Amino acid sequence: MASMATLFAKTPSPSQPFSKTLSTHFIPALKLPVPGRPGARRRLRVSAGLIEPDGGRLVELLVAEPLRGGKRREAVGLPRIKLSRIDLEWVHVLSEGWASPIKGFMRESEFLQTLHFSSLRLADGSVVNMSVPIVLDIDDAQKRRIGRDSNSTSFDGISIEIYKHPKEERIARTWGTTAPGLPYVDEAITNAGDWLIGGDLEVLEPIKYHDGLDRFRLSPAELREEFTKRNADAVFAFQLRNPVHNGHALLMTDTRRRLLEMGYKNPILLLHPLGGYTKADDVPLSWRMKQHEKVLEDGVLDPETTVVSIFPSPMHYAGPTEVQWHAKARINAGANFYIVGRDPAGMGHPIEKRDLYDADHGKKVLSMAPGLERLNILPFKVAAYDKTQGKMAFFDPSRAQDFIFISGTKMRKLARNKENPPKGFMCPGGWKVLVDYYDSLAVAEENGKVPQAVPA
Amino acid sequence: MASMATLFAKTPSPSQPFSKTLSTHFIPALKLPVPGRPGARRRLRVSAGLIEPDGGRLVELLVAEPLRGGKRREAVGLPRIKLSRIDLEWVHVLSEGWASPIKGFMRESEFLQTLHFSSLRLADGSVVNMSVPIVLDIDDAQKRRIGRDSNSTSFDGISIEIYKHPKEERIARTWGTTAPGLPYVDEAITNAGDWLIGGDLEVLEPIKYHDGLDRFRLSPAELREEFTKRNADAVFAFQLRNPVHNGHALLMTDTRRRLLEMGYKNPILLLHPLGGYTKADDVPLSWRMKQHEKVLEDGVLDPETTVVSIFPSPMHYAGPTEVQWHAKARINAGANFYIVGRDPAGMGHPIEKRDLYDADHGKKVLSMAPGLERLNILPFKVAAYDKTQGKMAFFDPSRAQDFIFISGTKMRKLARNKENPPKGFMCPGGWKVLVDYYDSLAVAEENGKVPQAVPA
Repeated sequence: MASMATLFAKTPSPSQPFSKTLSTHFIPALKLPVPGRPGARRRLRVSAGLIEPDGGRLVELLVAEPLRGGKRREAVGLPRIKLSRIDLEWVHVLSEGWASPIKGFMRESEFLQTLHFSSLRLADGSVVNMSVPIVLDIDDAQKRRIGRDSNSTSFDGISIEIYKHPKEERIARTWGTTAPGLPYVDEAITNAGDWLIGGDLEVLEPIKYHDGLDRFRLSPAELREEFTKRNADAVFAFQLRNPVHNGHALLMTDTRRRLLEMGYKNPILLLHPLGGYTKADDVPLSWRMKQHEKVLEDGVLDPETTVVSIFPSPMHYAGPTEVQWHAKARINAGANFYIVGRDPAGMGHPIEKRDLYDADHGKKVLSMAPGLERLNILPFKVAAYDKTQGKMAFFDPSRAQDFIFISGTKMRKLARNKENPPKGFMCPGGWKVLVDYYDSLAVAEENGKVPQAVPA
Repeated sequence: MASMATLFAKTPSPSQPFSKTLSTHFIPALKLPVPGRPGARRRLRVSAGLIEPDGGRLVELLVAEPLRGGKRREAVGLPRIKLSRIDLEWVHVLSEGWASPIKGFMRESEFLQTLHFSSLRLADGSVVNMSVPIVLDIDDAQKRRIGRDSNSTSFDGISIEIYKHPKEERIARTWGTTAPGLPYVDEAITNAGDWLIGGDLEVLEPIKYHDGLDRFRLSPAELREEFTKRNADAVFAFQLRNPVHNGHALLMTDTRRRLLEMGYKNPILLLHPLGGYTKADDVPLSWRMKQHEKVLEDGVLDPETTVVSIFPSPMHYAGPTEVQWHAKARINAGANFYIVGRDPAGMGHPIEKRDLYDADHGKKVLSMAPGLERLNILPFKVAAYDKTQGKMAFFDPSRAQDFIFISGTKMRKLARNKENPPKGFMCPGGWKVLVDYYDSLAVAEENGKVPQAVPA
């Protein structure tokens, strides 16, 4: 009847800017080709051409508007759990059905299946992918306050479950390492409570961030509606958390060309930057969105066949495990093609001088993952700067000497030093956004402010 | 055409006893109710009542006798890989089809699926369980000697694959921890080579240990034949690596009773001690077999409905991950019921004062594991010493004060001190074997010899 427990944000209210320095650079209004977000939620119309959500239907947890008042009054009497920013991002993810068919923070059986099998078996015997634990931790005091001693109980008619939070095992099985310094672990697990609370969730209000970017945060239902409106017969998703350069643009344009060759009439690109928690040295979402805007203005991607939206999930940096989540969530948003890059969701090993994951494992694991059989995996073709053409082109190993690889590190170094990349690497407007961003960091550092890891 | 590579044991030949001290205690001839092992391998007759092997048929890798001479001559020219004792145990496991349908040490796609999904997807889309990596490591020099630089190649017509051995990731995903001191890791992974070699395997000779126990090492095909001969309509497997006490016996007898109640006419117990690598403080196989013999002589288990055999796998102590392997291998041997205890394959955390795994996770994970849907999981009922009856009985929480729990630690302490457990805990003959074993350890220690972790 009531929500699992009443959830409140314990970090600064999401309607407040997180860092004064950065907030001054918030973009007042973007001009990206984004579909109008309806004021009221409309019913989902699923086109025959769109892939089915996992479990057959999108599980949306938002309480219908007429019922909210009553639920809110009921909730007053319930125990409260304060939410961190990352917890709130997961509530957002759950509320819109990105993780369909799960109906709330994971119960123990879902948590164990996620850790051991990266998938969940449903009541009808079918299997859906689920590789990253979506869990809510509470500490001993909170557990006591919720007033339950047993490990499984029901609460106002809704069964909830409180179970042990095996942090070491969770980390080892999710990341394949327990080395200190994993960003998500430091941020959300190390100091988390020793218990997890799971069960069905009812969300009383849509999650908003009031950062000027909410209109880009389309739910899976809204994306499906948009794809249907555009008569998409194929949707290919591109997950990103970095600035877009012309190599990416080439890849996306080329993917569309290949899909047309395969016989699709109207493939639509879902350009889908990750909007939740990212590590401190990633470019923050607001800057990335500004950069994406410039790239689109430059005409390298066709607004008619591109939908730009923000994926609200926080980032784990868990390589082959996490890339499955990135792909699975996009099925729920209607994508049936997923572009996978080299070392997706990877990073450097936190304490050893090597990459944490084999660069090919993400692609391989994704292609074998249970529950993702319906998704077409499109491996990323490697693009590099072709000196002979003066532009980004697919790498041709037979004339390797003609190409320059511009790594993320190199790109950041150039932007930080206000140098220009080779002409044709990125449109000048997009490059300027990057230079401005690093400039703002330098100013912040001079003023003694440390740049923060903020998702927006 | 040829075997993947010619495999040779690099530790003492298995025909030699591993420890002089212990070898004097080897049992010359056991009198357990074991079916006669045929001199030549016979063709498998599968009863309609037996569960199908994973993948539909048992994959046996032993080369047919008439072809062995030719294969052996061919093999002379092939690169050689020396095998550790544990490697050889895995060759044994693979050669007899315990890990069906895999056909040799894992290729990378099998290894990755094992680590991420505890299961393998077969060509027909069906899924079999596979939770523990069965891999063969080689070092840089061996990789060079095999003469291949690429990551995937073919060898005399049979494709082999050499790929990186991501030790940390393997350990983290298999054990859920990377803490130092995991027995199998110390023994077989830490100092292992940085490469893994996988591919189809041909085994030129049955693996024998010449320790007086080979006749108990029935292959899955031989076990299936035995169950068929006995007209079993249900086979329930009991994995053990500890001495049997009357609580175990009660459980096994009670399980048979329950199966009869369910309508089965002739349920057969597979009493299946693990025979491969175990950690130093476990009771060695030879002593365990001697103890099992006494328990059976005592008549607590019915020889007519019990098959005693040795499971050749080495032990990982990987809790919920490993228990799936223990169960899956028994499907291949014809068992359709599997008894699962509290904290199966568990142990203490190597560096923290707690159990490594939640005691209930093994049972829970097993019941949800992909590829094990066909197997009936029977949770272990807790037996304890009932003072009012003077015997082992199922624990009744309503009169908890009447029961004494005798842990493994307590049992070992009693046996070491030559004290007797409460009458009715274990038959006197079985108890004497344990006392003798700890006595032999004390003698060895006095002589300055350290008892070794030997599987026999």
